[in-house]
Amino acid sequence: MDLLTIKDPSFLKNLTNDQLKELSADVRKFLVEQLSVSGGHIGPNLGVVELTIALHKEFNSPEDKIIWDVGHQSYVHKILTGRAGQFDTLKKYKGLCGFPKMNESEHDVWETGHSSTSLSAAMGMVAAREIKKEKNYVLPVIGDGALTGGMALEALNHIGSEQKDMIVILNDNEMSIAPNVGALHSVLGRLRTAGKYKWAKDELELFLKKIPAVGGKVAATAERLKDSMKYLLVSGVFFEELGFTYLGPIDGHNYEELFENLRYAKKTKGPVLLHVITKKGKGYSPAELDRTGNWHGTGPYKIETGAFVKSPVKGPAWSSLVSETVRKLAREDERIVAITPAMPVGSKLEGFASEFPERMYDVGIAEQHAATFAAGLATQKMKPFLAIYSTFLQRAYDQLVHDIARQNLNVFIGVDRAGLVGADGETHQGVFDIAFLRHLPNMVVMMPKDENEGQHMVNTAIKYDDGPIAMRFPRGNGYGVPMDEMLREIPIGSWEVLREGTDAAILTFGTTIPMALEAAERLAKDDISVKVVNARFIKPLDSDMLIELLQQKMPILTIEEAILQGGFGSAVLEFTHDHGFSGAVIDRMGIPDRFIEHGSVDELLAEIGMTVEETVNKINLLTPKKQKRA
Amino acid sequence: MDLLTIKDPSFLKNLTNDQLKELSADVRKFLVEQLSVSGGHIGPNLGVVELTIALHKEFNSPEDKIIWDVGHQSYVHKILTGRAGQFDTLKKYKGLCGFPKMNESEHDVWETGHSSTSLSAAMGMVAAREIKKEKNYVLPVIGDGALTGGMALEALNHIGSEQKDMIVILNDNEMSIAPNVGALHSVLGRLRTAGKYKWAKDELELFLKKIPAVGGKVAATAERLKDSMKYLLVSGVFFEELGFTYLGPIDGHNYEELFENLRYAKKTKGPVLLHVITKKGKGYSPAELDRTGNWHGTGPYKIETGAFVKSPVKGPAWSSLVSETVRKLAREDERIVAITPAMPVGSKLEGFASEFPERMYDVGIAEQHAATFAAGLATQKMKPFLAIYSTFLQRAYDQLVHDIARQNLNVFIGVDRAGLVGADGETHQGVFDIAFLRHLPNMVVMMPKDENEGQHMVNTAIKYDDGPIAMRFPRGNGYGVPMDEMLREIPIGSWEVLREGTDAAILTFGTTIPMALEAAERLAKDDISVKVVNARFIKPLDSDMLIELLQQKMPILTIEEAILQGGFGSAVLEFTHDHGFSGAVIDRMGIPDRFIEHGSVDELLAEIGMTVEETVNKINLLTPKKQKRA
Repeated sequence: MDLLTIKDPSFLKNLTNDQLKELSADVRKFLVEQLSVSGGHIGPNLGVVELTIALHKEFNSPEDKIIWDVGHQSYVHKILTGRAGQFDTLKKYKGLCGFPKMNESEHDVWETGHSSTSLSAAMGMVAAREIKKEKNYVLPVIGDGALTGGMALEALNHIGSEQKDMIVILNDNEMSIAPNVGALHSVLGRLRTAGKYKWAKDELELFLKKIPAVGGKVAATAERLKDSMKYLLVSGVFFEELGFTYLGPIDGHNYEELFENLRYAKKTKGPVLLHVITKKGKGYSPAELDRTGNWHGTGPYKIETGAFVKSPVKGPAWSSLVSETVRKLAREDERIVAITPAMPVGSKLEGFASEFPERMYDVGIAEQHAATFAAGLATQKMKPFLAIYSTFLQRAYDQLVHDIARQNLNVFIGVDRAGLVGADGETHQGVFDIAFLRHLPNMVVMMPKDENEGQHMVNTAIKYDDGPIAMRFPRGNGYGVPMDEMLREIPIGSWEVLREGTDAAILTFGTTIPMALEAAERLAKDDISVKVVNARFIKPLDSDMLIELLQQKMPILTIEEAILQGGFGSAVLEFTHDHGFSGAVIDRMGIPDRFIEHGSVDELLAEIGMTVEETVNKINLLTPKKQKRA
Repeated sequence: MDLLTIKDPSFLKNLTNDQLKELSADVRKFLVEQLSVSGGHIGPNLGVVELTIALHKEFNSPEDKIIWDVGHQSYVHKILTGRAGQFDTLKKYKGLCGFPKMNESEHDVWETGHSSTSLSAAMGMVAAREIKKEKNYVLPVIGDGALTGGMALEALNHIGSEQKDMIVILNDNEMSIAPNVGALHSVLGRLRTAGKYKWAKDELELFLKKIPAVGGKVAATAERLKDSMKYLLVSGVFFEELGFTYLGPIDGHNYEELFENLRYAKKTKGPVLLHVITKKGKGYSPAELDRTGNWHGTGPYKIETGAFVKSPVKGPAWSSLVSETVRKLAREDERIVAITPAMPVGSKLEGFASEFPERMYDVGIAEQHAATFAAGLATQKMKPFLAIYSTFLQRAYDQLVHDIARQNLNVFIGVDRAGLVGADGETHQGVFDIAFLRHLPNMVVMMPKDENEGQHMVNTAIKYDDGPIAMRFPRGNGYGVPMDEMLREIPIGSWEVLREGTDAAILTFGTTIPMALEAAERLAKDDISVKVVNARFIKPLDSDMLIELLQQKMPILTIEEAILQGGFGSAVLEFTHDHGFSGAVIDRMGIPDRFIEHGSVDELLAEIGMTVEETVNKINLLTPKKQKRA
């Protein structure tokens, strides 16, 4: 059918299973074609075609609340709720968001981007329903990877104890972004491989052996246990123990099974966990066969071959640069241990993992644990490298405060995707890390100007032995600058003058340096001489250089691709007033006090006035006399 | 024995069980006597006397690493490691810390205060041991309440999958601070009541009924299941499923059982979970019989009667004032729902809970879930009141960013114990909340000057319908000011002039207002006229009043009992420079860039220079001409 004609999911009610299967094929074709141009989360969405259609046929959205955990698997839901026509604009500026968005549709009842929030949100909606004495179904759809996030487990614990009606759909595809890890993953693996009654005998025996010999009763009961264990394990005792009725595992690509179980779940009192097995990338073989995570989210690709359309890059990916430099250092420093919360691919840790498997830990989607695990390592004089995206580091804020900074432990935090990330939008922008790291005692925060300085900064972080040290770096690639052979250390708290000037100074770091230099170049043509400083240490500041600038009464413009409140510019203001330079003329440029939606980084920067032109304007305003003379 | 003679735990090696029992009695007597004077965490420590002694006898600290989750139960450990003589100074300024502290003893291998960190830290220590090819035992001791914290569950998932040797001691006393809640609590409850082989028949049948009728095989297997289920449940299949060898439950006050099982655990490969049942307050009946949580941590008490020695207070407890005002409003507003992460007593929510049981949720130690659960409620037009301590709100930072502020949901966050908390020390000081709340778009942050303004602020927060709103309030009690009968709303972003003045202005809020007023009083005697402003909105600022002050070129001193970087004073600096008042003379007073240890709030304030004298000095420095004239 023509998906562009869909207005809402009501048309599904009259379709037969055979028609639904045709629809599934149409949806897959649409997704494969659309995403080959726009890029997007192809794997997760191909995996939930039948599940999404079944949910929208069996339930009545938005009265019934379908909550997409993480939300990158909501494309089919967007098609069924009348948004197929907007897929040309997917993840583009002012276009369709890659995640659920309330202002797009009443069917998007919960917004996401980060994982593991759906169960807590669902419990909130259930509690509201009970208080208001309304009737509806609440249906969080959560992946097996997201289930290991601490807040999802907290929510399971609460939901199981409240015993209110809720249908949790566990979308088990054995992978989240990377192959999943953890004991809970093994629990699911046992359930999955068991099929309905097929528990492998040897696995069972292995399991039985692990039961401690309390009272020596094992031998006596072992035989009888075999049958019942099989039953118990297949029927999800883990979730039963937590108070859920467990249903499954069922084939998430089979409409008959889906409807049978969804209807059974509807009739069941109390919380139900419906274990649905799906295949990521189902129906498009390059994505279906992927076992690396490369087809989780992609850029454009050629449909026939599955070859990714690479855009030309100049330098190495920032994540690679950092992880590979850590790897190089790990050859000579046995203290180095790499930790990732489920992002071995995104953080480009594959090389480290293959060379140092015993010093590499993927702890799953578990940022809190990742941070304190790093702290535990550091107490034993190890040198943990915590590779984590800026936006996900938010999950570990208390662990940064309480475990890492307070104990002043030598943890190297690689803050990836710092600054605007573009297409993934407001849930993923790495714009708060300066504001939440800078106020932590003992914390060093820095950002390199290019990949060569980046490698030296990694070396600096590894050598640093005075407490935690965070290095921010952006999404994307370096500039292709020449790389030094020998790694060196950058003095902590030292800035660098990139361009001399006498009329004003720009203090900035990282991605905004080229903009500052270009603005200085233009201003030079108007005879305004602007000093540009690579303020690579956000904490501590370079107090010598800053005092010198203040003594020279040079107007200062700070620029940061980060939230302005409490950010780097604020640090400069604090320093200025703490040191009695109250007459100083200082202006700040950065992310204003609101959330920034999706679009290309350049479009977003233009929207918020972080451009060469605006930089020129601001410097002109800061140097009025000079301007008049010109 | 004389506990003051203990230097380290080595003396335990030669003691018989009978001698250990005598020692236990001595330790209990010591604790009950000492804490009757100093106050402290009496209940938790009386519960772990035998467990702590057994651990120190059976293992070799500090080579073997005993990690106390939360850490308030480490008093016995402190006694056994040579610190009995310092108990006179417990929780006092420069005295013995109420939590493990590395600088007190090499036996304190991990510092805590917040719950649920021990398993992650332990996994870090185990990973370090494996990499370094060392041999030692790692022994996290975690309570049943702390086990439901998300990061502990994340860690269980990781530990279970790594299968490295570790002995997790689950100290199950059925209560953490308040009676525990949640499905996991029920799992433990079943294990506990089962004893070793005594599974109640009716409970079992109830459980069997909940197993879904997959394939109709239930009838056929039910009989055989009964025996094996009994076995399975008693042997802790929940933990076995996660990859642990489960041992227990055992009597944590019985040395024979403790040693037998600790030795068995030592020989077991892979992670072990040793389920130890203890009684909080064991051996001192007022504490032992407590079922409210009042004997978790106490002030001084009379040993004979168990009566608490109350210090005289003037006004209502702040927590009471807030919770009771919410309760009053809840009588007319059915949208109001109260949420606490395991602090119904501390947050004084008992009254609310008994009047509105269906609108009161204690979600256990689960701050992340609590915050997003509140967000879920808010999407359904409910008005959630999240009662949470400032220091524990740190755990929900990402949920504040991603779920509450980004979706701009109407959640009222009652930020309890904001500012310095005193005796509980650096892990509990509520000094970061302004810095981490202020930079969040859509967030309102406020703090009342006294309990009367406090009740109006609660009303303001409940009536506010434009997004999240946080009200900070301090630990302790109000001043006993007259209370208005009628609640009113305070205009968002409005400050209040408490004292007029023309030479300088102090902008401050909450607990530091009396200090500012007193300083102004003193300065008046030197003919320096100081305006004092109740800057009750930290975000948004009162821009009209601030612009007026800046236009008048009045020097400004900001005072906040919170970390200075990125705090309220920074907000004033940002505003000042954003509005072109670059000549403004502004100084800031607040918590410096380091962690503040324990002591009375007044002692701590004196240490960091937040006193009337220092306020006078700072104003004098800001008004030099005036000073010269004087």
